[in-house]
Parts: sequence; C-alpha cells; structure tokens
Amino acid sequence: MPRYALCVEYDGGGFVGWQMQDDGPSIQGVMEEAARRLALGAAPVIAAAGRTDAGVHAEAQVVQLDLDRAMPPDKLRDALNYHLRPHAVAVRQAAVAPEGWQARFSAIGRAYRYRILNRPARPALDAGRVWHVPLRLDAEAMHAAARPLLGRHDFTSFRAAACQAASPVRTLDRLDVMRAGEEIVVAAEARSFLHHQVRNLVGTLKLVGEGRWPVARVAEALAARSRAAAGPTAPPQGLCLIAVRYPPALDPFAT
Amino acid sequence: MPRYALCVEYDGGGFVGWQMQDDGPSIQGVMEEAARRLALGAAPVIAAAGRTDAGVHAEAQVVQLDLDRAMPPDKLRDALNYHLRPHAVAVRQAAVAPEGWQARFSAIGRAYRYRILNRPARPALDAGRVWHVPLRLDAEAMHAAARPLLGRHDFTSFRAAACQAASPVRTLDRLDVMRAGEEIVVAAEARSFLHHQVRNLVGTLKLVGEGRWPVARVAEALAARSRAAAGPTAPPQGLCLIAVRYPPALDPFAT
Repeated sequence: MPRYALCVEYDGGGFVGWQMQDDGPSIQGVMEEAARRLALGAAPVIAAAGRTDAGVHAEAQVVQLDLDRAMPPDKLRDALNYHLRPHAVAVRQAAVAPEGWQARFSAIGRAYRYRILNRPARPALDAGRVWHVPLRLDAEAMHAAARPLLGRHDFTSFRAAACQAASPVRTLDRLDVMRAGEEIVVAAEARSFLHHQVRNLVGTLKLVGEGRWPVARVAEALAARSRAAAGPTAPPQGLCLIAVRYPPALDPFAT
Repeated sequence: MPRYALCVEYDGGGFVGWQMQDDGPSIQGVMEEAARRLALGAAPVIAAAGRTDAGVHAEAQVVQLDLDRAMPPDKLRDALNYHLRPHAVAVRQAAVAPEGWQARFSAIGRAYRYRILNRPARPALDAGRVWHVPLRLDAEAMHAAARPLLGRHDFTSFRAAACQAASPVRTLDRLDVMRAGEEIVVAAEARSFLHHQVRNLVGTLKLVGEGRWPVARVAEALAARSRAAAGPTAPPQGLCLIAVRYPPALDPFAT
C-alpha cells in the first residue's frame, strides 16, 4: 500500500473547512472523492497536516494518501487534478512518502499568514482573501504587543472553546506584524497551533492597532489564561496555511 | 463644475471591459450609475486613463469625474464605494483634480503586469487572475527576446485589427520577464499602448519560452509589421493595469 504526500492549494471560501462534515462540502471530502475515482472503487482515507477551518485558505497544505497501487507521482498529481474539477482545490506536487511518514504527526512546523487590508475602500481584487479593516492600524504597536507571546506559554486565552487539544501549552516561534502599503501581514509559525489560535491572536492584536488596548495588555491577556481576557476571533478569509515543515529525513518534498 | 480624480481597483472578470457596451456590464457603466446616485439625477460622464478589455483587471486605474457640486474627496470616495456595491469595483482614493487635468490625455505613462502561472496544476487561489501554462517556460529566453522591442517602433505586428489609434508607432519603456517560483511576471510600461499590445507581446514571448521560437524571431516579427508575423493574443485574465503616471504638476495623487 504505497503512501503519497501531496502539496495542496485551495480557496477555502466555498468549503466548511478541511474536515468532512454533514453541513457542506469539505476539502477532505472532495479530495477523497477524487481519490476514490482513481482507486476504482476503493475508499482511500486522506489526512492533512493542518485541519483548516471554514473559509481558511491554503497555499501549501500537506496531505497523505494511501493508494492500493503505485503510480508515478506526476501522473497521480495530474489525475487528482482532473478529478478535482471544478472545485477550487489543486494538487501542486505529489511525492512518494518516506517510510513511516505521516502528514500530521511527522510535521514539526506550521506557518500561517494572515492578511489585513487596511484602507477605507473595501477590497475588489482581494475580496474573500483579506480582513478589511477601514481605520488605520498601528502595525508597529501590534508587532511590539506580539513580542511577549513568543516562546512556550499556556495559550488558554487564545484557544477556541471547541479546541480538542490535550494541552493549551504551545511554543510560538514567530509572530511578526508588518505593513506593506495598504496591507498588514501577520506571519505566525509554531510546531502546532490550538484551534482558532492564529485568528484569536490577530483579533486581539487588532485592538492594539486601533489604540483601544495598550501594548502591554496583550501580555496580561496571555497571563490571565482565560478566553474572556483576550480579543475577538478574526474572520477566516484573511488566513492562509503557507507551509508545513518536516525533519530532513522525513521531508517528502526535499529536493 | 469640480473635477475629481479617482484611483480605482477592479476585478475585470465579470465585465465586458472598461467601456460601456450593449452586451453586458462595464466598469464605466457601474461607475456612472454610482455617480448618478450621488449627483441626484444628473448624469456625470466619466473617463479613464486606460480602457481595459473584458476580463482585464486594475489595481490602480485612474478615472476622472465631473460633479455638479464640490464634495470632500474622502466623502466622495466613501459614497461612491457605497453605491458601487456589490460590484467588484472599489475607489481606493479620490482627489480634487489639478486645473486642466484629464485622466487620459494628461497621462504620460501606463504600467501593466501580466501574470503567468507556470506549473502543471491549474490555479486554485489565483483562478481568473493568471494565465495557466502547464509546461515549463524559459523566462530568461523570453526576457532576452523582449530586448529588441524596447524603444520607439512601429508595433503593427502586435496591434489588434480593431485598434483605433491613428499611428502604430509606440515607445516601449519596459518589458521585463521575471520568474518568481511558479509564476512568471511580465512588466510592461509605455506612454501608451495599442489595443491588445501587451497581450500580443506576451502571447508571442510565450512561443519563445516554450522553445517553439528562437529568441531572434521576436525582433523579426516586429520588423515584419504584420499581425500575422507575431504570436497569438494571451488571455485577458493575466493582465492588470497597475499604475498610471502624470507629470508632477498634473499628478492628482501627489503627496
């Protein structure tokens, strides 16, 4: 039973999220359906490195797929893309997985990007890809407020009530806030994230950007270990999974 | 009668182009309709620096609008954006136009960007924004082939049959072809362009990128002064108007 690793891009806009659910189409669902057509009736189960929420995009989700027969990876990529039409899901790359590799459990890092369009005019070209915040935000203050969040902490204050993780402790390796013209980009990296963690961090930092919160209050919110102490959840459409990292010996896409 | 300059962003996907036509919605049409609601029944005529074709996008089209009464520019921007809903058209900036300024005739430069997604997988996130070319293109050869096109030439070979310009002579100031990962970007700048000129240049350079044409053949196609000597027209959705330039004394957005 050969295992393949897939690097997958999708527009999360029309989906209930990565994971299969009863209330609408999921990326997992359309990918399993495409794989089923390839496997001639067998029902391959696929798993992803990051279970993105409804409306969240991916430039480089990593997915594992066990097939009942071996296929050249490029042929697998093309065949899946054929069967994935017309969904906004595309397999960018396929590779034979290293022995023992699992998309989710072998991953040692996830990188997300959150885009805020910070201008009075609503988005025309980037509608559905950004959080539109009309009033000017202070990106430098947001960046400063994010500094104390780096490292290993109990992130209960930034964790969704529905989060199923056993522990609220995570190690945040990167949380940079940068302005580029009309856009503010938040870059977040960690071994793994709690449910809604990036969106709750962004929603809280926005309060600092607006001047409604002093910079130091973000560290206080973290220390409070209470969801009520932090800010609201930023909307999903600004978020994109941009990279999943594996140790060199287990990197299916190492060149 | 105060004149305003507007910097406008749009997704050309749902439109027949900038210019009003009988066969579908135009950006000019929805902007005139929005301006009419502001002008309380008067029928303002608007004009643009570049009349983009069906499916072509703009990050920074420049539009002139004569109103029958003065309005603070930021209020004009917000009111137009209100009335432009739900169309994928947004006024990024409004300014009082300098005396004698005309969006089209005062412009001394137009900058376009053409995006090619050059990978086997079709686009998921950038569908409708790029030309998908699955087979690997040689961007360096495309760039080299573009060198002889720079400067003042008779561009008959790259001009649409429907082009209404009095002369086929244009001065091309920039035509750079650059690879960035899976994407090839063509940057084109000139005082003005002929109808379909950028798309015909890109469609021809692609033949070089594929190796079907030697680099030198592009200069030969130019010299032939015949549309039949050049390559096909690249599709509209990869093209975006990214800047319009004015002389300093006539720049409505100079800060």
